[in-house]
Amino acid sequence: MNEARWVVQFATRNKGKYDEAARVAANYGVELEQLNLEKYEIQADDLAKIATVAAEQAFNESKLSPVVAEDAGFFVGALNGFPGPYSSYVYRKLGLEGVLRLLGNTAERAAHFSSAVAYCSGRETACFEGVVKGTVSFTPSGSHGFGFDPIFIPDGCDGRTFAEMDIDEKNRHSHRALAFSKFCEWLRFQSPEK
Amino acid sequence: MNEARWVVQFATRNKGKYDEAARVAANYGVELEQLNLEKYEIQADDLAKIATVAAEQAFNESKLSPVVAEDAGFFVGALNGFPGPYSSYVYRKLGLEGVLRLLGNTAERAAHFSSAVAYCSGRETACFEGVVKGTVSFTPSGSHGFGFDPIFIPDGCDGRTFAEMDIDEKNRHSHRALAFSKFCEWLRFQSPEK
Repeated sequence: MNEARWVVQFATRNKGKYDEAARVAANYGVELEQLNLEKYEIQADDLAKIATVAAEQAFNESKLSPVVAEDAGFFVGALNGFPGPYSSYVYRKLGLEGVLRLLGNTAERAAHFSSAVAYCSGRETACFEGVVKGTVSFTPSGSHGFGFDPIFIPDGCDGRTFAEMDIDEKNRHSHRALAFSKFCEWLRFQSPEK
Repeated sequence: MNEARWVVQFATRNKGKYDEAARVAANYGVELEQLNLEKYEIQADDLAKIATVAAEQAFNESKLSPVVAEDAGFFVGALNGFPGPYSSYVYRKLGLEGVLRLLGNTAERAAHFSSAVAYCSGRETACFEGVVKGTVSFTPSGSHGFGFDPIFIPDGCDGRTFAEMDIDEKNRHSHRALAFSKFCEWLRFQSPEK
């Protein structure tokens, strides 16, 4: 089961994302290789659309078949879904503190992380989504992971944030792991291309 | 001078933007027609890059020559330039209130609006930028314009916000008018294409 039968290029410059995804894929006999390409991201509220355009673009540029691209976002209910698809920009500009300040002391702290994994082989394009629900903490906690992990408490994990979990534990709960699992399960039923 | 010698398609679905730009262009003998096309916007911190890709994409889709696309943003110094190129998304999600809450009572309220106007004729691509400096007000004021206009006080306008000015007065100061003026001045020295 761990003998790779599929090799897929993962177009991302984020080493943390790559590490998370590669571990998940390895469990399905899928080998992910990091394709260090400038990702072409469009502006859209829909992660699946952003990931699909990115995968098609990466495939066209790299000519390496097949390619996956992933887009993820942190959606805060009381902020109408902000920062959503622009989470990485908002994290760079405002940090965790910005989201906490916008929420203030409100008790309405429901949030979710979503991930869309889009696959493009030239022959076909497919997209798979994963969601993890939880709440926004009042203060940051933990040092693992990246982005908004220190303020996100997934449901059913004893109140700890994503950043308080090591990569293996986070992968048992995360949106990205779920989306990549769906993708790999689907891929195993396709004909190997290499 | 008001007899149109150039007809340019302006790819935008924002009627407010179109109205502002069309008035400026008319002063230079340039007729703008609204091209109601879904604008293809990439994610980037650089407005010129976003506008240029959008203009090229619109040109390729419409086959109408020539085309302009514009991208604008509201850049708040104390927020590291947030919301910048994502101003329209942030406005939809957080409103004026979100930016005011992030700033709180800080006295550091410098901000600017920027506009990048990109032109694509198939033969050539060019981009023109306009910037207007000012400050963020403590409360919204005025009902003209759109987006962050009610909380932006341009320098040298007696402390009034953009939303307290009618379209003609705003056009004497605005980033968009400046960028379109630069574009039209340049266009007048090109050979007419129609």
